[in-house]
Amino acid sequence: MGYQLITEDILNAFKAIAGEANVLTAHDELEKYSRDETEDLVYYPEVVVKPQTAEQVAGLLKICNEKHIAVTPRGAGTGLSGGALPVNKGLLISMERFNKILQIDEDNLQATVEPGVITEVFMDAVAEKGLLYPVDPASKGSCFIGGNVSHGSGGPRVVKYGTIREYILNLQVVLPTGEIIWTGANTLKYSSGYNLTQLMIGSEGTLGIVTAIVVKLIPRPQHDVLMLASFASNEDACAAVSAIFRAGVVPSALEFMERRGVEWVIEHDGVNFDLKEGIQAFLLIEVDGSSMDLIFENCERINGVLESFNCQDVLFADTAAQKEELWVMRRTMAVSVKSNSVYKEEDTVVPRAALPQLINGIKEIGGRFGFESVCYGHAGDGNLHVNIIKAGMSDEDWNNKLKEGIKEIFELTVALGGTLSGEHGIGLLQKEYMPIKYSDVHFALWRGIKQVFDPNNILNPGKIFN
Amino acid sequence: MGYQLITEDILNAFKAIAGEANVLTAHDELEKYSRDETEDLVYYPEVVVKPQTAEQVAGLLKICNEKHIAVTPRGAGTGLSGGALPVNKGLLISMERFNKILQIDEDNLQATVEPGVITEVFMDAVAEKGLLYPVDPASKGSCFIGGNVSHGSGGPRVVKYGTIREYILNLQVVLPTGEIIWTGANTLKYSSGYNLTQLMIGSEGTLGIVTAIVVKLIPRPQHDVLMLASFASNEDACAAVSAIFRAGVVPSALEFMERRGVEWVIEHDGVNFDLKEGIQAFLLIEVDGSSMDLIFENCERINGVLESFNCQDVLFADTAAQKEELWVMRRTMAVSVKSNSVYKEEDTVVPRAALPQLINGIKEIGGRFGFESVCYGHAGDGNLHVNIIKAGMSDEDWNNKLKEGIKEIFELTVALGGTLSGEHGIGLLQKEYMPIKYSDVHFALWRGIKQVFDPNNILNPGKIFN
Repeated sequence: MGYQLITEDILNAFKAIAGEANVLTAHDELEKYSRDETEDLVYYPEVVVKPQTAEQVAGLLKICNEKHIAVTPRGAGTGLSGGALPVNKGLLISMERFNKILQIDEDNLQATVEPGVITEVFMDAVAEKGLLYPVDPASKGSCFIGGNVSHGSGGPRVVKYGTIREYILNLQVVLPTGEIIWTGANTLKYSSGYNLTQLMIGSEGTLGIVTAIVVKLIPRPQHDVLMLASFASNEDACAAVSAIFRAGVVPSALEFMERRGVEWVIEHDGVNFDLKEGIQAFLLIEVDGSSMDLIFENCERINGVLESFNCQDVLFADTAAQKEELWVMRRTMAVSVKSNSVYKEEDTVVPRAALPQLINGIKEIGGRFGFESVCYGHAGDGNLHVNIIKAGMSDEDWNNKLKEGIKEIFELTVALGGTLSGEHGIGLLQKEYMPIKYSDVHFALWRGIKQVFDPNNILNPGKIFN
Repeated sequence: MGYQLITEDILNAFKAIAGEANVLTAHDELEKYSRDETEDLVYYPEVVVKPQTAEQVAGLLKICNEKHIAVTPRGAGTGLSGGALPVNKGLLISMERFNKILQIDEDNLQATVEPGVITEVFMDAVAEKGLLYPVDPASKGSCFIGGNVSHGSGGPRVVKYGTIREYILNLQVVLPTGEIIWTGANTLKYSSGYNLTQLMIGSEGTLGIVTAIVVKLIPRPQHDVLMLASFASNEDACAAVSAIFRAGVVPSALEFMERRGVEWVIEHDGVNFDLKEGIQAFLLIEVDGSSMDLIFENCERINGVLESFNCQDVLFADTAAQKEELWVMRRTMAVSVKSNSVYKEEDTVVPRAALPQLINGIKEIGGRFGFESVCYGHAGDGNLHVNIIKAGMSDEDWNNKLKEGIKEIFELTVALGGTLSGEHGIGLLQKEYMPIKYSDVHFALWRGIKQVFDPNNILNPGKIFN
């Protein structure tokens, strides 16, 4: 579907709404909005506007809806599936000026926050009040909480605390047609009409633009222990994961890392870590709570499980600095891999007991197609990020044959009861693989829902599905 | 919109699909399907069919969609908002034969269960494996888990463990047009397309008929302590609620009960309880966990909070039998009130610190309109069930003026940041109040979504909204 270009008149209308200083058109100013953290993709918008209120967003959308101009909403641009890229040109709405924490309501353990607040800034602000907002993606230092809503984001602590779905109570949303609504109520639950809050979460900016977020907070656990377990094989490490839960323990993080990833973090980030020979895989395990006795009891139980899966060694982080170092190792892995090799990032999720079959299958597929891979991720959720490494693959194979291999990885994921993406979203890059999991009936329902919210298909068109 | 009646030919087609024994037409056989637990309402379907497979449900829906016959799906009929009543006659599909627990997967801490399984039967089955499914509405001994999905059900333990939304991983659904789909994946999270699983939850059987449910389970806490705190005023009891969380404790249940409700339970159910003079309200508080030390520490902290809100007395349940007696008191309250008086049940939910304003407001409104009320419910969630008692109100006022009073209660609820229903749903009875909270824009979105799933509006028409 063709979209209209932005004329001088329309540009002036944008300036009248958001102020001239917040409307960008110069090529060098648009550059940073032409990419996200996805590999290799560059799409320039015609215009970037940085509004600051829901009313301004509504004004922009009304014009674009009337004139049939494509609109791409953008948070911090840290996405890994190309969701924030303006593939149809048009207007890019940057939410960077929606950067205020509007309220931290300690009586109700709720906060109201704008979508352009950096996740970690928000986490720190509530931590100061003794509260916890546990949704901490690896990019928490740079990503926006609005982007987290759009992707249904997770992070290491999902395994105990749940994804962002469980922390979003209510959303202020501007619809593509320009109406401003609150999707629900500021309550811990409700059963009053179709749940538009949950429908917006994970819709990747295709149904509306979120302009305010009411978040649930919880009391902060007082203690945590972090341990790093090393294994001689991927399979042993992965098999230990579901056994930990079967032993009755729910850790507050349970992350998997492959040796190659750790090597590259050491090289790239200068992390100080003694990587022993013969070690192939790690589990980074955190247990939190308010009783040190109970935490130690749980750690002992975990230790027993680890031993029965041929764990080679368990390192306990002694100090806050050592904990942070281990977390940095995990969090910077994506960036380190990226800096070391041409790569593609895929996000897979399966029932957690299927992790050994998933990782063995990925390696087997790589062997046949000639690519290597570095896997890591939120093993406790069955969520494995697969970084495919070009290594010795020819350019021709990388560009042509690789897709078939990725398809096989997703086919395996689906066969194991899982799906394409645990938390990175589908965006632009993964949509061609969606038919592996979803049928024409799903696509018809999704397209129908999209049409209800966005009859002229102006908002982030071409994302998730065509 | 008029619906077609069920002809002899169509009836024969139903019999061919589900078997003659599972198709009911005799008036006395239809009687039990003509009501639910909502006060005073009786609507007979033309025909009841009891299918046993998704394919049979699909066959029935295809016929009804083609012939334009209204279809009402029904679980156990324990609903409190008239959602399962066949107001447009037509076919009632009873899910009672979908009564199998298909799998309890201890490796993944998941189960697959049919919608006609009684909630408590399922809870007990997973408890035998040392696992917890914490969504326990008061009607757990008779309601179906499928009905719980349709209402986004809660229960006392939501306050710590979350509503059913956090435990449903995947749903098999038959669409009104007869297609059978799985809404998502059997994984703890996913970010792949609009979340149809969450959209189905709480849609009150208007978007599709759920035929199988994949449920998340968690390790069972090993201990719990139950305490009953008594207060001389509703306001003190309600004000203590949010203070408990502010003190850093998340109880596994935090229920409010008014004196009158307790009196009626004692009369009606012969519960043995020494109800002291001067006591107006109770909080029933459970703390669970795997460390008795931590539980006692939390109870002490709660005690400190209770004292500062003029708590008169705290009773600790000493034995399992005593715990069960206190829980029976809470759970049978709805039934006891119902047996004692002509009443109407309303379900309100607000941010929990607004509870004192809510309960004071309800009493003030009752004073002006001449009705009494018995309030109880999941105070920890800000969810108060308001039982309106006819008492001295004239029949004319009860039938005509009362609605205005209910409207004021919901206006107050919304003004406090809340909404109409926390967990009972809107169904037939509450839909007239929906405009208090929701705008034409919401209704247009909901109607649009309904149209996408059910283009001929055959499935549970006239529920939630018109």
